[in-house]
Amino acid sequence: MKKIIPLFLFSILAFPMIASAETAVTAESVLQSLDMAWIMIAAFLVFFMHAGFAMVESGFTRSKNALNILMKNFMTMSIASVLYFVVGYGIMFGTSGGGIIGIDGFLLSGQEDQIGFFVFQAVFAATCATIISGAVAERIKLGSYLLLTVVMTGFIYPVVGHWVWGGGWLSELGFVDFAGSTVVHLTGALGAIVAVMFLGPRLGKYSGKTVNVIPGHNIPLGALGVFILWFGWFGFNGGSTLAADPSLVPSVIATTLLSASAGIIGSGFYSYAKFKRIDASLTLNGALAGLVGITAGTANVSLIGAIIIGLIAGVILVEAVQFLDRIARIDDPVGAIAVHGVCGIWGTLAVGFFSVEGGLFYGDGLSLLGIQAVGILAVIAWTMLTTGIVVFIIKSTVGIRVSRQEEVSGLDFSEHGSTAYESSRGIFNENYNPRVDADFGVGLLHRLDSLNNDQKPKKERTAQ
Amino acid sequence: MKKIIPLFLFSILAFPMIASAETAVTAESVLQSLDMAWIMIAAFLVFFMHAGFAMVESGFTRSKNALNILMKNFMTMSIASVLYFVVGYGIMFGTSGGGIIGIDGFLLSGQEDQIGFFVFQAVFAATCATIISGAVAERIKLGSYLLLTVVMTGFIYPVVGHWVWGGGWLSELGFVDFAGSTVVHLTGALGAIVAVMFLGPRLGKYSGKTVNVIPGHNIPLGALGVFILWFGWFGFNGGSTLAADPSLVPSVIATTLLSASAGIIGSGFYSYAKFKRIDASLTLNGALAGLVGITAGTANVSLIGAIIIGLIAGVILVEAVQFLDRIARIDDPVGAIAVHGVCGIWGTLAVGFFSVEGGLFYGDGLSLLGIQAVGILAVIAWTMLTTGIVVFIIKSTVGIRVSRQEEVSGLDFSEHGSTAYESSRGIFNENYNPRVDADFGVGLLHRLDSLNNDQKPKKERTAQ
Amino acid sequence: MKKIIPLFLFSILAFPMIASAETAVTAESVLQSLDMAWIMIAAFLVFFMHAGFAMVESGFTRSKNALNILMKNFMTMSIASVLYFVVGYGIMFGTSGGGIIGIDGFLLSGQEDQIGFFVFQAVFAATCATIISGAVAERIKLGSYLLLTVVMTGFIYPVVGHWVWGGGWLSELGFVDFAGSTVVHLTGALGAIVAVMFLGPRLGKYSGKTVNVIPGHNIPLGALGVFILWFGWFGFNGGSTLAADPSLVPSVIATTLLSASAGIIGSGFYSYAKFKRIDASLTLNGALAGLVGITAGTANVSLIGAIIIGLIAGVILVEAVQFLDRIARIDDPVGAIAVHGVCGIWGTLAVGFFSVEGGLFYGDGLSLLGIQAVGILAVIAWTMLTTGIVVFIIKSTVGIRVSRQEEVSGLDFSEHGSTAYESSRGIFNENYNPRVDADFGVGLLHRLDSLNNDQKPKKERTAQ
Repeated sequence: MKKIIPLFLFSILAFPMIASAETAVTAESVLQSLDMAWIMIAAFLVFFMHAGFAMVESGFTRSKNALNILMKNFMTMSIASVLYFVVGYGIMFGTSGGGIIGIDGFLLSGQEDQIGFFVFQAVFAATCATIISGAVAERIKLGSYLLLTVVMTGFIYPVVGHWVWGGGWLSELGFVDFAGSTVVHLTGALGAIVAVMFLGPRLGKYSGKTVNVIPGHNIPLGALGVFILWFGWFGFNGGSTLAADPSLVPSVIATTLLSASAGIIGSGFYSYAKFKRIDASLTLNGALAGLVGITAGTANVSLIGAIIIGLIAGVILVEAVQFLDRIARIDDPVGAIAVHGVCGIWGTLAVGFFSVEGGLFYGDGLSLLGIQAVGILAVIAWTMLTTGIVVFIIKSTVGIRVSRQEEVSGLDFSEHGSTAYESSRGIFNENYNPRVDADFGVGLLHRLDSLNNDQKPKKERTAQ
Repeated sequence: MKKIIPLFLFSILAFPMIASAETAVTAESVLQSLDMAWIMIAAFLVFFMHAGFAMVESGFTRSKNALNILMKNFMTMSIASVLYFVVGYGIMFGTSGGGIIGIDGFLLSGQEDQIGFFVFQAVFAATCATIISGAVAERIKLGSYLLLTVVMTGFIYPVVGHWVWGGGWLSELGFVDFAGSTVVHLTGALGAIVAVMFLGPRLGKYSGKTVNVIPGHNIPLGALGVFILWFGWFGFNGGSTLAADPSLVPSVIATTLLSASAGIIGSGFYSYAKFKRIDASLTLNGALAGLVGITAGTANVSLIGAIIIGLIAGVILVEAVQFLDRIARIDDPVGAIAVHGVCGIWGTLAVGFFSVEGGLFYGDGLSLLGIQAVGILAVIAWTMLTTGIVVFIIKSTVGIRVSRQEEVSGLDFSEHGSTAYESSRGIFNENYNPRVDADFGVGLLHRLDSLNNDQKPKKERTAQ
Repeated sequence: MKKIIPLFLFSILAFPMIASAETAVTAESVLQSLDMAWIMIAAFLVFFMHAGFAMVESGFTRSKNALNILMKNFMTMSIASVLYFVVGYGIMFGTSGGGIIGIDGFLLSGQEDQIGFFVFQAVFAATCATIISGAVAERIKLGSYLLLTVVMTGFIYPVVGHWVWGGGWLSELGFVDFAGSTVVHLTGALGAIVAVMFLGPRLGKYSGKTVNVIPGHNIPLGALGVFILWFGWFGFNGGSTLAADPSLVPSVIATTLLSASAGIIGSGFYSYAKFKRIDASLTLNGALAGLVGITAGTANVSLIGAIIIGLIAGVILVEAVQFLDRIARIDDPVGAIAVHGVCGIWGTLAVGFFSVEGGLFYGDGLSLLGIQAVGILAVIAWTMLTTGIVVFIIKSTVGIRVSRQEEVSGLDFSEHGSTAYESSRGIFNENYNPRVDADFGVGLLHRLDSLNNDQKPKKERTAQ
């Protein structure tokens, strides 16, 4: 209760609902209602992207870590929402302190009329944080991951957001990142690469000169996740218009659809050219590559520009995955760094080439391209520095990686004392024998269950 | 055809489409269009919640009953929609007979201009009914379940709805249940607890003093279901505003997001404190607890109030699951009674504490809290009495529980003659040997298939 | 790069974004914004239907072909979007050449103000193509399937669309197909039946007189797919109003909800009457049957008419599946031809019976019914002829069917060198031994992986 009481007292002072005043209905008031509805629906879709991340990350990894990954996704969404309300929103959209950081608007105080905008931004903040969870999957301590999530959503991401979307110095400079190729995706991927460098690869990933493949356990679930992410992305890009503007929204949706499609075509056929087969996981990631690639310029490029951006993103994705996995030897189980990081950089630079206003290919020279590069470098410096410090502190205090035994056992067992799947025991099996409860509580029970499954395979077999 | 002909004759008399008259476009007419669009989109989301229920209920139970649970979810949605059109809507929103029950508007007659509102309410009615299917899973007869669904959606739920939302006596009294913590969730949970008391626990759940855990077979599917439910809940609460009102909708969505997040945090960390590990199923149910908890007061509490309501709901959920499972020994495979019942009561009472208008913590005394308590007690009395009569009649006539053999075999086989999963036989296996058709029809074929899988494990093994 | 350069040059000339001009806000301008938002949201939902198709098609087939089916779904969506932008939209909605085919508007040139409408139509085009992938599953060559998809989405479907929705001769004739029972579903199903006739049944499907059942590997995934399709269908039918018209949209949504529900009730109880059990796959397909059945008349029939149409569709579905599978011996693994073809015809004819304007049952005689029949016959002739030519050419050149060995191995291995699922190896297993990379690239690695899984079952077993 200690934590709750102060909050609770505050709640008495908290802003009451704005009374639903019966004001005259005008075209302007109806437009305001429509824009609000548009942002809310977009926020629902961006929220749903977290289901997509959860399915992609759990499907592309091993079943023994599936529960743990799902828990990280739910926890990230929850912690991000609350923290973004408490501090993140203020840092990102409060009155600017020298173009560097917001200095008011915490707990939305003085921002009561911005609740809808807050909701939309809160689900964005959670997206940035959850990108990390895929890259660090199968070996990070849950508690340490949550600590990183707290700093990421409460401080590191909001500062970047302030620079670009909160009236900070990058927006002053003319940096263009319409929906967040850099702000959301690159920032998340940078947090991921730093965390992975401190974590190291999963056991068995690299043995001497050889690079081993550790296949995901449920690709159909991962494929569903990609579809959900694509679906949600229409809200991610479409909602970033912040208004149901018929001169802007249709182009944004069309460029999003076409770039993602081109990303699949690019990665699919390039993987065919390279490996003599259309590789499933690279093609699925190709859709995400096309989506990340178009996010920065979705409102600024032509439809054909969007197709080219997506095709290139799909090819880059394949090379980036190969490079990170085999040359750089950075173990990223789901390819999050290649998708959100490398393609996030590509998407941000692509604005400098393809923007119909200021783009190099439209005869407007290199200035925009230069500004885009500056923005990318600034975000890389800030995010890697701050994340590095945080992860270093975590590693040198509570530790960041689970023990060898825990990793081998799987995090579902070691962190949650349970398993993601119960093998069906045959529909006529009369020997189903649930374990005794004793007084352990649910978690430990599942543990006994798991032990039993593992230690008595013969019994299982004869039971059939 | 017998059943169809009278309907068919009626269809000739049925209201034709309102001709799309070209009236002058005014701000008022556009606002009407916008509000209609908002309700329709919200209805889509509430409909989609049924996919969430289906995934949660099948994932959290055993694979041998997965098909049966899915069939119940689809049948519930279908029967509820049609029945709510035929009688439910009239009982709930027809002209009030003494504040107790609606007496007209059946088949929407005289309500042609309320079709959109009907759609939104129909998917709500189905939600109330489907809450039951999780609690009674793995042992109820399909036919008996469907009979209960018919009475629930056609009569019991609409009467409660009339009292609170249809101008009935509870609304007269000042009872506040904005989106249905009591009307939808508590009512469904009460139906569930009554049915479970008549049904008894699953075989092997309780042996003497010991309480056994029967783990779900596919938690990732269940986790996806929770995400889908959360996603749909934005429509459930947001659409209950019945208008795209910028002074109301954003707060409703924000309280929904924050309370669900707090529910996860509350249940996750409380389960950690209690069991020394973040329990997966309790944490997933914690999201639903936070959602059920905020549903009654979503439009009436502050954002901080919403966070506190959600945190408490998450803690209550853990204790409620433990109490029902271990002390009361009520076998609820998915925790539906704890989530929708206990947290439904909490959410309804929470309005009395946290409502910024009339709430105890805002200095407005105990009157609202008292009214909330009266409403809860009235709904408990009505629903348990009526459901009890219905279930008693069902049990003493057609029977309610499958035979021991059927339960052991699994309801997928005994009710549908099929299985939810076909074990992959190894990608090089040439021995795949589908069974002969004979003249049984699809169902029985799958039966042979199942038998074969079960009786010839050795053959399966040597086949590899 | 060769392919990209010309496109790229074009992109310089491509239409820039329409500048977001600050025009005065009027009721008309707000209505325009609202209608745009409605179409965009509907397009998102129709897009999401592709996730539904992917889950239904992979869940209802064998696990050894799951990856391949998912790849086909993603590729179909991608190729269709790009091709529909390049040529399809122009053929369908360009200036009509004699009511037969559109002759301009390629690359949306001159149609810049129709981008939103293009997006909605593009996801429709992809839907038509993806219907085929389910019927040809488990034995078609990926490349040959993609060639068919190219012609289908780039030419065959747009021509049908032009006839009915693009101002072509069928629309002149008064043919009514509001949302596409014929244009989308029947056209797709006709492509499917032609392809299947050239392909032949899967190995082991028919042996002598006997018809074998080849059960799907993951029905819960398929059931989720059905829910997603139903959810998306609200956008499919609701968006076809092309405006948020309160006099039209609510009825469209209500008829869609009620017909799908009636489809489930019809197929469920009819399968019970016929097989003494509620067959799961027939009941799930019954929902789709009701949806396909109402699609043509969703805006033209009464709510009771919708229920009757759905009930009949559900019964027709069961008989159609039995007939095609057992009498006609057309091997359609997911029942796509019965659902989209037979019920597409039923839905189109049903308009002639149940339309409140022009329907036989409303006393308006047989003329509309006759026109509907003419439209159906015309589409059958056109689609079967053109698809037949295309498939014949494909078969006699690159070939259409995988080899016996590839089919037995499963297309996941033979086309993608990978597997959809990795069997969990028990959470304590220390023997997980990923294969060496060598220099093959990802695809081949997975191949080694699969080989290893298959050839060393004993090792796997002793490893436990």
